[in-house]
Amino acid sequence: MSRFFHTRYANLKPYVPGEQPRERTYVKLNTNESPFPPSPRAVEAARREAERLQLYSDPTAKFLHECFAALIGVDPGEVMATNGSDEILYFAFMAFCGKDRPAVFPDITYGFYPVFANLLGIPYTEIPLRADFTVDVDALCQTPGTVFLANPNAPTGIAIPPREIERILRAHPNDVVVIDEAYVDFGAESCVPLIRQYENLLVTQTFSKSRSMAGARLGFGIAQASLINDLQTIRNSINPYNVNRMTMAAGIGAIEDETYTRKNCEIIVQNREYCTHALQKLGFTVIPSQANFLFVRHPAIGGSALYSALRERGILVRHFDAPRLTDYNRITIGSRAEIDALLAAIQTISEVNI
Amino acid sequence: MSRFFHTRYANLKPYVPGEQPRERTYVKLNTNESPFPPSPRAVEAARREAERLQLYSDPTAKFLHECFAALIGVDPGEVMATNGSDEILYFAFMAFCGKDRPAVFPDITYGFYPVFANLLGIPYTEIPLRADFTVDVDALCQTPGTVFLANPNAPTGIAIPPREIERILRAHPNDVVVIDEAYVDFGAESCVPLIRQYENLLVTQTFSKSRSMAGARLGFGIAQASLINDLQTIRNSINPYNVNRMTMAAGIGAIEDETYTRKNCEIIVQNREYCTHALQKLGFTVIPSQANFLFVRHPAIGGSALYSALRERGILVRHFDAPRLTDYNRITIGSRAEIDALLAAIQTISEVNI
Repeated sequence: MSRFFHTRYANLKPYVPGEQPRERTYVKLNTNESPFPPSPRAVEAARREAERLQLYSDPTAKFLHECFAALIGVDPGEVMATNGSDEILYFAFMAFCGKDRPAVFPDITYGFYPVFANLLGIPYTEIPLRADFTVDVDALCQTPGTVFLANPNAPTGIAIPPREIERILRAHPNDVVVIDEAYVDFGAESCVPLIRQYENLLVTQTFSKSRSMAGARLGFGIAQASLINDLQTIRNSINPYNVNRMTMAAGIGAIEDETYTRKNCEIIVQNREYCTHALQKLGFTVIPSQANFLFVRHPAIGGSALYSALRERGILVRHFDAPRLTDYNRITIGSRAEIDALLAAIQTISEVNI
Repeated sequence: MSRFFHTRYANLKPYVPGEQPRERTYVKLNTNESPFPPSPRAVEAARREAERLQLYSDPTAKFLHECFAALIGVDPGEVMATNGSDEILYFAFMAFCGKDRPAVFPDITYGFYPVFANLLGIPYTEIPLRADFTVDVDALCQTPGTVFLANPNAPTGIAIPPREIERILRAHPNDVVVIDEAYVDFGAESCVPLIRQYENLLVTQTFSKSRSMAGARLGFGIAQASLINDLQTIRNSINPYNVNRMTMAAGIGAIEDETYTRKNCEIIVQNREYCTHALQKLGFTVIPSQANFLFVRHPAIGGSALYSALRERGILVRHFDAPRLTDYNRITIGSRAEIDALLAAIQTISEVNI
């Protein structure tokens, strides 16, 4: 750090995204991207918009908000588009936390939550997952602060039902509860319908996974209008043109092609079952996942060793070097061909190792 | 605001971007967009990338950084791409200011600076422009804090030469000095070469104006690597994938077509001279501008009245309802046809009003 960097960041550790290597082509199962291209309607809409880049994007994102709100059955004033869902999560930390209002989240979850909190000087409590990696809802209910909960959780893939989320919402009547639904489209149940009843609920979603738009950067916050207005105040005080024209257009195109999204999600769910069974046959413990990834452990091959051996064979998965995670790897559910390449590589690795 | 919004924002007033009306087509001279489409190479590059949106963008922006660094004659580690230059300015407030390290900027300048400061709880000093709207460099030199200076300034269009900036840099050896060069490509001299000598200099630029990419959202910070590393720490703690794939590609395409950019800037400069003389003939006072806009005042027609009368006639300009600005309008330099439409409308308005 330079001598000009504010001392409050002296111990700040930024988020470390999964590798995006360029030196060779990998079977990329490390960042939970979709194996499918975006909808042809999304592509075509983005391509058309590329010719109009001299004009600013609509800072109110009117058409995009209308389309997305209609898709999920809420009012346009109850949604807000952001530059990926990382941005809406950041805005939520900005808006609803402070030195006097801590954050609460599981100890094993999306690694960005503690980074946001540390950056902003927000105290936080990490609630340990239970031994089976499930979320300790009771502890979340009892701990004061603004709640951040990925559902399904990452990197475990475990989802909890909305009735459990409702317990948290009721236990925190004076706190916002943020439900991060980045992975909700692969079989879990969304909490979006609960925004009718709970003024303290903020749901976040992304077009990066189920809609194959990771490279476009489009996320959403969904909540009652009063919370959305707060988040708009933050957005308009940082970057009112946060979503570019091409991404807005692609988002509308993707929404108009919901059949395509649903079909792709079904294939991912089928591939997930296929991969789960195949890995179990190879001796792996596989955490039951409702996301587009699996969190897996082999009794004989260490997590880091498997990661490295796969990497040597041209397959990237994600390994987290943290106490309870180090035996595991997180594997994105790709196409059937990608899964078969993974399984073949694991076969050769286990022959060497066991 | 909701009862959940943190009380520290009770008096926060967000930035108000210029209108982007959709109810009718205006001659849009209110947000300093380019009248030219982006380079065909930028368009083509963005269109190609739209087909690969399922993959995250490169969080290191390697190719884009290499291209831009080569264009402006610095090292790739001395630049950082952001989601528009608003984002790099926000990161600079985050990184180099605090409750104990105030910001300093002119009282009349880009309206986002005080918004960033208020959002982040950063104290700031506003240095009044002199009576002729020039920046009071002596006062900037004497006032402690991290300096933010738009050069050319907005909404005046007045630029100061790098040797004046050097006085500020030398007077602030322990503060970062941020030179916001959003409008530098229309005749002013850039401070980029000064980064060699001054470790406290951060220059920000945008592709929104001279490169016709306002709707793509691409900005840059340019500084010695140690400052860029601080800004990378902030970026990686907020949104490591802040620039999407299509915008990265379009940026590279635009850089590869520098001839196109230079030609468009020359036309804007010619049109600015044409518009200046025509407005002066119509009795206007025109502040000498080195940007792609003019800041103008008529002795007989009030600023707000002119704004409204032009709007009725389908022409949008920008009026700021602030003490020293209220007699003026800021008019973007568009195409010759747009300027002629403006001049014709003003002719009819002044016949009615005078």
